Amino acid sequence: MIQGHGDDAYLFDRPIVADFSSNVYYGGMQEKLVQHIAGHIRDAGHYPDPEGGRLQQQIEQRTELTPGMVMVTNGGTEAIYLVAQAFRGASTTVVVPTFAEYADACKLHGHEVSYFFREKLEPDTRFITDLVFICNPNNPTAQAMNEEALLQLIQFNNRSTFIIDEAYIEFTRNADSLLPHLHRLHNVLVLRSLTKSCCIPGLRLGYLAGQKALLDKVRAFRMPWSVNSLALEAGHYIMDHPAAFEVPVDALLGDTYQLWEGVRKMPEFRVHPTHTHYFLFETLTGTAAALKLWLVNNYGILIRDASNFYGLEQGHCRITCRNQEDNTLLLTALRKWTLS
Amino acid sequence: MIQGHGDDAYLFDRPIVADFSSNVYYGGMQEKLVQHIAGHIRDAGHYPDPEGGRLQQQIEQRTELTPGMVMVTNGGTEAIYLVAQAFRGASTTVVVPTFAEYADACKLHGHEVSYFFREKLEPDTRFITDLVFICNPNNPTAQAMNEEALLQLIQFNNRSTFIIDEAYIEFTRNADSLLPHLHRLHNVLVLRSLTKSCCIPGLRLGYLAGQKALLDKVRAFRMPWSVNSLALEAGHYIMDHPAAFEVPVDALLGDTYQLWEGVRKMPEFRVHPTHTHYFLFETLTGTAAALKLWLVNNYGILIRDASNFYGLEQGHCRITCRNQEDNTLLLTALRKWTLS
Repeated sequence: MIQGHGDDAYLFDRPIVADFSSNVYYGGMQEKLVQHIAGHIRDAGHYPDPEGGRLQQQIEQRTELTPGMVMVTNGGTEAIYLVAQAFRGASTTVVVPTFAEYADACKLHGHEVSYFFREKLEPDTRFITDLVFICNPNNPTAQAMNEEALLQLIQFNNRSTFIIDEAYIEFTRNADSLLPHLHRLHNVLVLRSLTKSCCIPGLRLGYLAGQKALLDKVRAFRMPWSVNSLALEAGHYIMDHPAAFEVPVDALLGDTYQLWEGVRKMPEFRVHPTHTHYFLFETLTGTAAALKLWLVNNYGILIRDASNFYGLEQGHCRITCRNQEDNTLLLTALRKWTLS
Repeated sequence: MIQGHGDDAYLFDRPIVADFSSNVYYGGMQEKLVQHIAGHIRDAGHYPDPEGGRLQQQIEQRTELTPGMVMVTNGGTEAIYLVAQAFRGASTTVVVPTFAEYADACKLHGHEVSYFFREKLEPDTRFITDLVFICNPNNPTAQAMNEEALLQLIQFNNRSTFIIDEAYIEFTRNADSLLPHLHRLHNVLVLRSLTKSCCIPGLRLGYLAGQKALLDKVRAFRMPWSVNSLALEAGHYIMDHPAAFEVPVDALLGDTYQLWEGVRKMPEFRVHPTHTHYFLFETLTGTAAALKLWLVNNYGILIRDASNFYGLEQGHCRITCRNQEDNTLLLTALRKWTLS
C-alpha cells in the first residue's frame, strides 16, 4: 500500500495548472497517438492477447534482443511485483533513496530487505544478497551511474541478480541502457517503462528484459491479460513510430539546468545535483508537505513531497522540469514562499 | 501460463465473422461508452488513482455495501491471483470443470489443490479445505446454483472461505448474487466482472467484494495502479448509467434455448443443459479441435474448444449465444460438418 506519490492532483479540489510532481515528460500525449487509440477503442470488445505476444516481438526486434528475452508488463510496477514473487524469500538489497515499490513488493513476498546508500556505491562495492535493485538514473535523487561502472559492479557481483530499473534512461546523458549488453549478462534483468517518455502513465505499459532462462523464472508468475487492449495498441503504435517518441533530451536538460539554477539561488532551499530532467531540493524553512500545500492553494502548482522516500527528510521535494513558462511560474511562487 | 482459451481470433489469419468462443455478451461495446472513453483518452497522460478509489466508492454505493467492502481489480483474473497470494500455502478445493485460472493461480502460490465435481455438489457437501472456489453460474458447464442452496452450503462449511465467482450472474435466471448477503457472511468473497455484460473484456475491469477484514487480507497484496485510466473511466461511466448496461436476459436466454435445441436435434452432438447464454456440447464424430479449425476455415466461425478444461473430454465445445442470424449460420455450419 503506497503512502504518498507524485501526480496526485486527483486529491485536490483546486485545478492544477502546472504539475511538477511526476517524472513523466511534460510534453503530453501526442495527438497522433490519441487518434490511434481512439480508432481502436472498439478493440476492447475482445480479450487482449493474454501475453501481449505481438508487442513483445516488436520490442524484441527494436531492442535487438532474441525471442523470449522480453516480457510485456502492466507498467513497471507489475514487473517489480513479479520479480519479488519469483524470488520469494530471497535476501535483497535496495539501493536508496529510491522508488518505494522495490522494498514494498519484496517485503510482501518475504524477502529479507536491506538498504545500501547510493552515495556510497562504487564499482567494487560487494553485495552478499541474492538480489540487488538499482534504479538508473535513480528516482528521486536524479543520479545516473554510467554503464561502464555499472557493468563492473555487476561483473564483480556475479552471484547476485541485478534488477536495473531504466524507467528514466531516456532523460539522461550520463548513462546508456544495459539492453545491448544483456546477451552476455546472465544475472541482470532490465526494467523499462513506456509511459514516462511517451507521456502515457495512465495506460500502464512497461517491460522486463533479460536472458530467457532468467526471465522465464519471472514469467511463470505472470497472470494472463494483465495489459489491456488499449495499452497494447498504444505500444504497437509507439514501436511503429519510434522517432516520434524521442525525447528532446538536450533541450530538456538545458531547461532543467535553468530551473535548478533558479532554485539554487534562493538561500532558503538546498538543491541536489542532477543528471536528469528532475531533481531534489530541500526547503530549509519549513516542510515539504507545507510547501506542497501552499503551492497548490496559492498557484495551482503541484510538486512531489519527497519526504516519504526512505533516507530522505521532511524538507525534501522533487520537481520535474516543464516548459519555460511553467518553470518561471514555479520560481516566482517559490520566491513568494520564501517571503511568506 | 494458459493453454487455450476463448476469443483467440488473433491466432487466425482468416477474418472471424461470428465469434461464439467467448462468454462476453455479443451486443458489442455501446457507442456512448466508446464516445465517453474517446473523450478521456488524454487522461492517460496522468497516473490513475493507485487504488481506483472513486470507482470503488461508486460500486460500494450501487451494491449497498459499506466502505472498504469492494476492491477494484484488473479484470477478474487479478482478483483470483491476489486471493491465491493472500492465502499462500492453503488447502483449496476447486469445483470443476471450471475456469482454469483458479487452480493455476493457487498452484503458483503453493496451495494444495483438490478438485470436486460440480455434479456431486449438494447444500450439505462437507469441505475440509481452507478455501473453496465456486463459479456461479459455472463456466463452462453453464449450471447455476440458486442462492438458497449456496447459502446453506456456505453456512454448513463456516470454517472454509468461499470465493464465489459471479462473472456470469447477469446471464441467468437460476441464481441471484450473494452481494446483498455479504454483510452477514464472514467467510465469503464475491468476484464480479464488469467486462462480460458490458462487452469490454479488452479493458480488464472487475472487483472483489467481502467483509472488510477478510478483503483487507487480500488487498494487502494488491499492487498500485493495476487498473489503467481508461478502464477506470469506463467503470465510472457504467456505474453512472446502470440501466444502459442491463443485459436483455429473457430474450437472450430464449435465443440460447433455440440454439441449444438446434444443436440437440443433430445426433452427431450431445448437448449439456444450461442456465445461461452459453452451453457445452460434445461432438461424437471427431474432436473439438478439429471442429473448431473446420468452422474457422470454412465459415469464419469461432467456437471454444473446451477440451482443456479439467474434467472435460476431447469432444467438448462451448458456444455462446449470438443474434439469430449468426446462430442460424452456426447451425447450418454444424449440419454441414456432420455431413462432411
